[in-house]
Amino acid sequence: MAKDMTLLWGSGSPPCWRVMIALEEKNLQGYNQKQLSFEKGEHKSKEVMDINPRGQVPAFKCGDKIINESCGACFFLESQYKSQGNKLIPDCPKEQAVMFQRVFEVNTLGDKMANVIYYNWRVPEGERHDSAIKRNKEVLVAELKMWEGYLQKASGGFLAGKNFSLADVIIFPTFAYLYRFGLCEERYPKLTEYYKSLMNRPSIKATWPPTWKETPGQDLLKDL
Amino acid sequence: MAKDMTLLWGSGSPPCWRVMIALEEKNLQGYNQKQLSFEKGEHKSKEVMDINPRGQVPAFKCGDKIINESCGACFFLESQYKSQGNKLIPDCPKEQAVMFQRVFEVNTLGDKMANVIYYNWRVPEGERHDSAIKRNKEVLVAELKMWEGYLQKASGGFLAGKNFSLADVIIFPTFAYLYRFGLCEERYPKLTEYYKSLMNRPSIKATWPPTWKETPGQDLLKDL
Repeated sequence: MAKDMTLLWGSGSPPCWRVMIALEEKNLQGYNQKQLSFEKGEHKSKEVMDINPRGQVPAFKCGDKIINESCGACFFLESQYKSQGNKLIPDCPKEQAVMFQRVFEVNTLGDKMANVIYYNWRVPEGERHDSAIKRNKEVLVAELKMWEGYLQKASGGFLAGKNFSLADVIIFPTFAYLYRFGLCEERYPKLTEYYKSLMNRPSIKATWPPTWKETPGQDLLKDL
Repeated sequence: MAKDMTLLWGSGSPPCWRVMIALEEKNLQGYNQKQLSFEKGEHKSKEVMDINPRGQVPAFKCGDKIINESCGACFFLESQYKSQGNKLIPDCPKEQAVMFQRVFEVNTLGDKMANVIYYNWRVPEGERHDSAIKRNKEVLVAELKMWEGYLQKASGGFLAGKNFSLADVIIFPTFAYLYRFGLCEERYPKLTEYYKSLMNRPSIKATWPPTWKETPGQDLLKDL
């Protein structure tokens, strides 16, 4: 089915996960894939660099075409396999508009999340400030409230309305990551409801990060 | 033609500019529009907040649909007006793959650019470090070399190949911004060639930032 595709990925990485969900949704199973270890630095290996010169996963090849940007890969798969598997771009212009809006908002959410979770990794020791850590957390809380509000107003159970779409494919892994790092379920009830309603969707269940099944999560975000 | 559309924008903002280019390319002239002043803080006005709760421009309405994310708006316009004006998503799978890859790489480029140009605006006074300024510049230079390399390998004159596409709509304004802030033309010959070859394209010329015509650029990036 998808024998001409190759995916190098790391467990738990939202960008990797969204490509895997998209592949499942489009019934593109059986692709060549290899799970790499971030701890061992395998995402900087020659194998990855040959496909993705940024030294990041996913590194994704579709025949002779390379699309390492995870959102780009999802859009490309939907475009090339329109009539296969689940349709991921809604026909309804209103839903489609919300979908495009949400998809491109994920960078903002992801970046604000990373500024909190990966502060020490992003900022060298001599440049760290408690004031920045505090501000980054406040910024993330404001962002999460924005998404909680989106879901309060959304009707239909999915981010763009009544149809599962690329917005869900692309954003669900970021939400899951937040919970994995201890986001309080009670404080964001709509986000939590959305998260729980999707976690058993076949494409998501089939691609759940293997390392998350084996090890407990962290509580870094519990106070947010 | 586009009487049911409203665009609130600021001169020189790459996100605003790309929506304006997309509207031109799709022959969607005559939309309601209002140029706002960043200096006067008009992007935080109620008028903007009513459409875009993030208090950012563009604030874009298409009938009763709101899409403030500039790349999302470009994709939406292409999707809704497929057969009108210029086709912005290539049919050729290879070109399409490159287009999707480049479109989603623009965030990385834009963010690295903003970390240099807007360092003092992004980082409060007590948290600034010369080491961070130096590193941000190095990171931007490496990113620019990456794009110079893309254009070296690209054949056909456009970012995704021989057809002008959403990749050009979305990324051209960011390149133009770099030159406006003093990027050295000689040091990035392919980037410069690309920039110059597109600056007279009708959609780009018609939407050139009005404030750029009136005032000189800056030389902040001249050493990069």
